[in-house]
Amino acid sequence: MQDVARLANVSIATVSFTVNNSKPVSPATRARVEAAMQELGFRRNAVGRALASKRTHILALLYPALQHRFRGTVVDFFTSAASTASERGYNLVLWPASNDSELDELTSTGLVDGVLLMEVQVDDPRVEQLTASRTPFALIGRTGDPSALDYVDIDFENTVAAAIEHLAQLGHTSIGLLDGGVGRGALRGYAPVVRTRESFAQEMAARGLTAFSFTCDENPAAGREAAATLMNEAPGMTALLLMNEHAGPGLVTGLHRLGMSVPADLSILSLASSREMAAMTDPDLSVLSAPSIELGRRGVELLIDQLDGGNQHERQSLVMCAFEPGNSTAPPRRAPPSE
Amino acid sequence: MQDVARLANVSIATVSFTVNNSKPVSPATRARVEAAMQELGFRRNAVGRALASKRTHILALLYPALQHRFRGTVVDFFTSAASTASERGYNLVLWPASNDSELDELTSTGLVDGVLLMEVQVDDPRVEQLTASRTPFALIGRTGDPSALDYVDIDFENTVAAAIEHLAQLGHTSIGLLDGGVGRGALRGYAPVVRTRESFAQEMAARGLTAFSFTCDENPAAGREAAATLMNEAPGMTALLLMNEHAGPGLVTGLHRLGMSVPADLSILSLASSREMAAMTDPDLSVLSAPSIELGRRGVELLIDQLDGGNQHERQSLVMCAFEPGNSTAPPRRAPPSE
Repeated sequence: MQDVARLANVSIATVSFTVNNSKPVSPATRARVEAAMQELGFRRNAVGRALASKRTHILALLYPALQHRFRGTVVDFFTSAASTASERGYNLVLWPASNDSELDELTSTGLVDGVLLMEVQVDDPRVEQLTASRTPFALIGRTGDPSALDYVDIDFENTVAAAIEHLAQLGHTSIGLLDGGVGRGALRGYAPVVRTRESFAQEMAARGLTAFSFTCDENPAAGREAAATLMNEAPGMTALLLMNEHAGPGLVTGLHRLGMSVPADLSILSLASSREMAAMTDPDLSVLSAPSIELGRRGVELLIDQLDGGNQHERQSLVMCAFEPGNSTAPPRRAPPSE
Repeated sequence: MQDVARLANVSIATVSFTVNNSKPVSPATRARVEAAMQELGFRRNAVGRALASKRTHILALLYPALQHRFRGTVVDFFTSAASTASERGYNLVLWPASNDSELDELTSTGLVDGVLLMEVQVDDPRVEQLTASRTPFALIGRTGDPSALDYVDIDFENTVAAAIEHLAQLGHTSIGLLDGGVGRGALRGYAPVVRTRESFAQEMAARGLTAFSFTCDENPAAGREAAATLMNEAPGMTALLLMNEHAGPGLVTGLHRLGMSVPADLSILSLASSREMAAMTDPDLSVLSAPSIELGRRGVELLIDQLDGGNQHERQSLVMCAFEPGNSTAPPRRAPPSE
C-alpha cells in the first residue's frame, strides 16, 4: 500500500479511498493510483473485499427480458444510470431476471448491493420480493401505490394533459390514443400504459372531448395494420396520441397507403418517446420526449442514498416529458361541426 | 441441507447440484428445491461460495457504451445469450466498460467467471488486457487476426458477396456502400465495417463493377442528408448496400423528397440488420438479417466450454446473414449504357 502511494505520489488514505471507493477521488488521481497498482502487481480482490465489507459496489438494473421492446429510451437511461453509478464508485450492470426465482437468486447471492427496477407494473410482485429479502432497491417507474417506495418516474398525468392541451389548442375535438398494451399474464399491468390510459380518459372527459382508444403490438407491421383499424373505427377522429413508438413508422406508412395525409387528415403526437425515434417517419413526429437521462441519474442516486446513508435527493419525484415540435400536428382539415 | 432435501423430496446430491449449479437440474426440481430453501430460511451466500469455489457463475457481456448505437440486433443477442447462460447455470449480465481501467476493475475483482466481448475492433486492446489478466473470454465478433481466439461472428465476406450477387443478377453495375463509419480514437477500427468495406471493394473489383463508398452517422437525420450526397456524388449509381440500419428510414425519406423512387431509381439492400428495422421504411427494405440469436447462443457456449472444461462447440465459427426479401430491390430503371 505504501509502495502504491509513493509511486502514485498520493497519500495512503487516497489509495485506500480509491481501492475501497469509500470517498470520491478525482479521475486523474484514480488513474495514477490504478497505474501504480498495476505496475506493482497489486490486485484488489473484490470477492475478499466484499466478504470483509459485505459490499460489492455492484448495482443491478433489473431487465425483465422481452416484456416490452427494449426502447431507445431505455438504452439512454441505462447509459445515464451506469455513468452516474461510476461517478459514485459503483458499477451498474443490466441483469436479466424475468421470473421470481431468477430475482430470488440475485438477491440471495449477496453479489449486488442494491437493485433498480425498470418496466414497473401497477402490482409489481418484485417489490414485495425485494422488500422481503431486505435488498435495497429503488424504482424507475411507479406501482399503483408507491407511497412507501423510493422512485423516479415520468409524470404521465401531466404529460398526457399537456399533449391533449396541445391538440385542443389546434382545434381538435375528437382524439384517439394508440398504445402498446398493458401486458399479459405475470407481466400484466404495465404501469406507463395504465397511467396514460387513465389520464387520457379523465382529461378527455373533463374537457368534454370525444375519446377513442386503440392498442397494437410494438412493431412497425402492427402499426401498419392499426392504420386501417383507426380509420374504420373512428373516421371522425382528427388527432392521435401515440404511446407506442415502435409502431409509429408503420402507422405513418399505413396511413399514407390509405391515402391519408399526416397531419392534414390525422395529427399525431408521440408520447414518452425520443427525438430520434420521431425522426424515423416522414413527416417527423412531434414528440413529448422521455426524460431518460434524468430518470437514470435520479434512480441511481436514490439507491446510493440508501446504501451510503445519504439523504440528498428527493425520495419520490416525477419528471415531465419535454415537447419537441416535429411536423405531425396541425389544425384539423375541416372545422368540427358546430352542435 | 438434509431438511431441504426432505422437504423438496429430492436427494441431498440434487440439492447440492441446484445450489452449486454443478450439474443440470430440471426447472421443476430447481423450483422445488428453491421453495424448500426459502421456506426453511436457507440462503445461499454466493460471496462465500465464490470464495470457496473461486467461481461466481456470473458472465459479463461487455458493453462499450456509446461506441455504436445499441442496435436492435444487439438486444436480440443479449437476450439469447442470457437465456443460454441461464440454461447452463450461469447468469449473464450486461456490463458497461468503456475504457481500460473499467475493464481492469472488472477482471481484477474476481466477481465474474468470464467475459464476452461485443462490438469488436480490428485491433482490440481488450483482447490483450483480458489475456494478460487470465480472464476466460470469447468474442462475438473478430479482431484482424483472431486465429488464437474463441469467437463466433457474422460471415461478412460471404454476406457481402451474396448481396452483390443479388444486385448484379438484377442487372446493376454501379453499386454503392453506405456505412456508419469505423469509429474514432480509441474506438477506431470497428471490425464489422472494416470487413464489409474490404469485402465490398474486392468483390466489386473482381466483378468489374463500379463501386462507390459513403459514410454517415447512425441516425435518421444523417440518413436524410446522405440521400443528397449520394445523388450528387454518384448520379449513375442504381443500387446501394446499406450497412447502417439507423440511417435507413431517413435515407428513404430523403430520397423521396428529392423525387427519387425506391427501388425504381435506387435499389437498397440492408446488411446485418433485421426484418423489424427493415419494416420501418416504405417500401420495406430487403435485408440480409443478422443471425443475432445464433451469435448470442454460440458466444455463451464457447465461454462456458472454457469454464466447465467442455469442448463441445466449434471454437471459431462464422454465420451467414439470411436474405429476407422486402420491396426495395428491382432491376435498374434504364439498362446501363453498353460500352
